[in-house]
Amino acid sequence: MYRPPSLVHLIEALTRLPGVGPKTAQRLAFHLLKVPKREAEDLAHAILVLKEKAGYCSICSSITETDPCFICSDSSRDRELICVVEEPSDVLAIEKTGGFKGRYHVLRGCLSPLEGVGPEDLRVKELLSRLREGEVKEVILATNPNLEGEATAMYLLKLIRPLGIKVTRLARGLPVGGDLEFADEMTLTKSLEGRREMG
Amino acid sequence: MYRPPSLVHLIEALTRLPGVGPKTAQRLAFHLLKVPKREAEDLAHAILVLKEKAGYCSICSSITETDPCFICSDSSRDRELICVVEEPSDVLAIEKTGGFKGRYHVLRGCLSPLEGVGPEDLRVKELLSRLREGEVKEVILATNPNLEGEATAMYLLKLIRPLGIKVTRLARGLPVGGDLEFADEMTLTKSLEGRREMG
Repeated sequence: MYRPPSLVHLIEALTRLPGVGPKTAQRLAFHLLKVPKREAEDLAHAILVLKEKAGYCSICSSITETDPCFICSDSSRDRELICVVEEPSDVLAIEKTGGFKGRYHVLRGCLSPLEGVGPEDLRVKELLSRLREGEVKEVILATNPNLEGEATAMYLLKLIRPLGIKVTRLARGLPVGGDLEFADEMTLTKSLEGRREMG
Repeated sequence: MYRPPSLVHLIEALTRLPGVGPKTAQRLAFHLLKVPKREAEDLAHAILVLKEKAGYCSICSSITETDPCFICSDSSRDRELICVVEEPSDVLAIEKTGGFKGRYHVLRGCLSPLEGVGPEDLRVKELLSRLREGEVKEVILATNPNLEGEATAMYLLKLIRPLGIKVTRLARGLPVGGDLEFADEMTLTKSLEGRREMG
């Protein structure tokens, strides 16, 4: 069966994206074929510009076009508080709340023996040397509330505690707007354990 | 909240793709940030090359890098048989079966009064002038088996019949490997109507 090589190539490249199977890739490729040239070129150029301009902050490892990043170079941010997250996208999620005024440290992953990710693959060494500078009073471990995220938090706790720095973890409980009835057992247990006095 | 402009721009461009919401776009953008530069550039270049090289065949309107396309210029294909489809992707779907040896005509859409798509927006005029050349003996109307596709087929039937050309429609019935129990009423009705004698 004959298919234009440029179409085949684009479908192959799109299939490499996460969550994009051959059918979705074909649909996207035909969409790009259909749209005005300018619109398709805009997407292509956006990819090239991102790879050209964006990189990782040499201090916190989050995504930035300047080094140090906007947050690390912001003198109004609390230098005594560091929030440790797995991925740069987690920084954006927390920044969106507008409720955190400290700084970040991005691990760029989490411990995962199954996928062969050990501490040396994460920005753990860099975190410890930041903490040894002595400014930081509290580290919030905001790794994901799943098995790997918990294991990573436990691992970091053991390393950070000897430095005499307070280590906290994000609260676990019922999601706001959620239904108690539909909460899983684990979440309900955690939200009972973490109950707080009212008023 | 600060986000690197190049990241924001790529997320915007990705959100314009069909079926890609803001969350998926962000996930894809972070993925592209993570992969080796070469891999991201390969995708960007594939888009640019497609828009540069691929176009529509001046005869059948399917996708091609040469004009006329591979199928229209293949002298071994039956010139007496034309299969009319809505989109270039339908050509690929039928070619995949390997069972069709005629040629194609791509309408580039279907009649849809709700979306303001009329006959003048489709390659109907071009189809009729191909048919008037006199070579074609049968037209298979392979528009989609939905409301718009049926309406388009009915519309074309009225135009083509006066030319004395045989007009057929793809068989409707139970999908191969499907379960009779789960077939919808309409499909079951059509498959009863279209029943064929065995042996």
